[in-house]
Amino acid sequence: MKFGGTSVASIERIRNVAQHVKREVDAGHEVAVVVSAMSGKTNELVGWAAEASPLHDAREYDAVVASGEQVTSGLLAIALQAVGIQARSWQGWQIPIRTSDAHGAARILEIDGGEIIKRFAERKEVAVVSGFQGVSKDTGRITTLGRGGSDTSAVAIAAAIRADRCDIYTDVDGVYTTDPRVVPKAKRLEKVAFEEMLELASQGAKVLQVRSVELGMVHNVRVFVRSSFDKPEDIDAHANHPPGTLICSEEEIVEQQVVTGIAFSKDEAQISVRQVQDKPGVAAAIFGPLAEANINVDMIVQNVSEDGATTDLTFTVPAADYMRAKETITKAKDAIGYTRLDTATDVAKVSVIGIGMRSHAGVAAQAFKALSARNINIRAITTSEIKFSLLIDAAYTELAVRTLHTLYGLDA
Amino acid sequence: MKFGGTSVASIERIRNVAQHVKREVDAGHEVAVVVSAMSGKTNELVGWAAEASPLHDAREYDAVVASGEQVTSGLLAIALQAVGIQARSWQGWQIPIRTSDAHGAARILEIDGGEIIKRFAERKEVAVVSGFQGVSKDTGRITTLGRGGSDTSAVAIAAAIRADRCDIYTDVDGVYTTDPRVVPKAKRLEKVAFEEMLELASQGAKVLQVRSVELGMVHNVRVFVRSSFDKPEDIDAHANHPPGTLICSEEEIVEQQVVTGIAFSKDEAQISVRQVQDKPGVAAAIFGPLAEANINVDMIVQNVSEDGATTDLTFTVPAADYMRAKETITKAKDAIGYTRLDTATDVAKVSVIGIGMRSHAGVAAQAFKALSARNINIRAITTSEIKFSLLIDAAYTELAVRTLHTLYGLDA
Repeated sequence: MKFGGTSVASIERIRNVAQHVKREVDAGHEVAVVVSAMSGKTNELVGWAAEASPLHDAREYDAVVASGEQVTSGLLAIALQAVGIQARSWQGWQIPIRTSDAHGAARILEIDGGEIIKRFAERKEVAVVSGFQGVSKDTGRITTLGRGGSDTSAVAIAAAIRADRCDIYTDVDGVYTTDPRVVPKAKRLEKVAFEEMLELASQGAKVLQVRSVELGMVHNVRVFVRSSFDKPEDIDAHANHPPGTLICSEEEIVEQQVVTGIAFSKDEAQISVRQVQDKPGVAAAIFGPLAEANINVDMIVQNVSEDGATTDLTFTVPAADYMRAKETITKAKDAIGYTRLDTATDVAKVSVIGIGMRSHAGVAAQAFKALSARNINIRAITTSEIKFSLLIDAAYTELAVRTLHTLYGLDA
Repeated sequence: MKFGGTSVASIERIRNVAQHVKREVDAGHEVAVVVSAMSGKTNELVGWAAEASPLHDAREYDAVVASGEQVTSGLLAIALQAVGIQARSWQGWQIPIRTSDAHGAARILEIDGGEIIKRFAERKEVAVVSGFQGVSKDTGRITTLGRGGSDTSAVAIAAAIRADRCDIYTDVDGVYTTDPRVVPKAKRLEKVAFEEMLELASQGAKVLQVRSVELGMVHNVRVFVRSSFDKPEDIDAHANHPPGTLICSEEEIVEQQVVTGIAFSKDEAQISVRQVQDKPGVAAAIFGPLAEANINVDMIVQNVSEDGATTDLTFTVPAADYMRAKETITKAKDAIGYTRLDTATDVAKVSVIGIGMRSHAGVAAQAFKALSARNINIRAITTSEIKFSLLIDAAYTELAVRTLHTLYGLDA
């Protein structure tokens, strides 16, 4: 069971979390709990570190920010004991959750879940684990896994204790076919395959951290996204299908939809590099300097050149990096060798995702037709095995998402 | 160097602390730093633990509250690096500071200072140690040393690294002959012997925690109390006598005053048990139940009985415990066997302290005479080798303290 920052934002909410845990224990389940810092706390700590020095030592940053989860795990253990559940808090270094020493973005290397399993078996003691943190295997210093890392902690702990399921309690009650604020008819998905969730998560659905989904896929940990605001007493802990979305392997999804969901991202900027030489090394000349500048390039589109000599290359970057990206490419003009830069900042990316696409032809073609009927111009297209993404004018985002949502039969 | 909560209450103050440390390092000194939590933080954490459950697990309480010092040590390490000083934070479990598992009031068992010494020698890396905390030798869980425990941490670390001195930076600039708010002529003491400081600290001078003074005495760590609000740049790090008070062994104090200081405490209540049997077991019958009720008895006065049959026994308790103490003694009336209880709540204890008393007769007699001349009635007297305490009506506290301060030549 994993509870995020808003679910533990006050002592009252921590008590509510304790009731969720008690319900599961009372139903005979063996559980471990992973918690984030109280919401707002991590930002406060990050702010202090930045104020102490803008260029701070990542190891000290980690020691400072990891304290937020330490507080919550101790408080939840206290709240659990108060309702008669045996519980103890575990810091990353106590289990230990051994990680790389990439401070601020550490990778989990190994977790021994033996003690947690043993204590539950022997005395029904619930482990309350501080999320987001670990301890460097080499140096013994506190590490953090990066923003949203508590999801990753939860899935990793679930794998280590060979859990049947990893329940992520969050402020939404599952994964939707698209953002319900844009499409009121969006419906909650019962099940999503790991691969689809990866695309949904990285394409802008903010329910789960991408890394945690990857980890779930690799270790085959079924991840269940559910609401922490449901009243604990209204939930049947024995139910096979409590409200929520199960992220699982493809095989577990009997009736696979062609399209599972539609993700979108508005904070995109487009840069088109015109008439570059169509020869080896040009892409490297463009994307090397961008990588060095730490700019995350998203879509990349390069067409087959008409004349065999020059071609156009289009890519997108987060809107926040637009100015820096443009500057970087302008500086590298001689090395790249292009005639013109065309750029646009008011663009959005809409992605259609579904494992069923693999066996269904013409899925994208339907989209092109439907959008065309709405007079929505498609600026660029990229595709992969289980999704395709379209770059359009940002003003049409909502219309495009709604159109596609209806087109693929996702409306509730 | 130890910095308390008010000295690290904001990032600006933490930067000021970094300047103090830099000054010492630049002067060629090898230093380690111990820090408390930002002021107010420990109270916030304690409040949350109490809100989660009034009867909380002390082990979880420790995990929660120890996080405050973790934050400060990381932030100070960052601030030190920002001014060009090599530094790293150390949590109790990292050094480790091994303690008993008396959570909330753990005793330090052992500290290996080798790594701290080595790192300073090899790369001038300043250790920034989280005060107040350690790790249980038996269970590996986080422990805390109890309120004010950072002073104890500092002296213990100083002993472990064989420091020449342990500088306690605080919001006062030293130890005074008495409270300057009561006696404006009170003067700062250059040097105080450990034994005297123990009496001053436990008699109500709130500069240092008693345990840290005991530890300093046992390991012969010279403790220097000084102000953290002095401007770092105004201090000569090479000076033999920066402003402050050195707490050291008696031998180091060449010219020992007869009386070093006067302490007082107003929150006292007096209970006199009249005509108890003058026989073995009576004191136990009175103080046993009080100890069980966790009431801290301070002065105990029993006079030699006049008739060899019955005697009066007087003791004091903190005013906050007065009602409970009275109730406890009333309940135990049959077991104790007394005729009457006389009690008073408006009483104060004034203590006169000085190692020189050992070799000077008549020190207390001077006090009795001087107070009598002021018409101040003495309710009870206790004496030890280096101090005597007087119980008087609380209304006369300030007058008595001023009178004695002048009497023993302490006025500046």
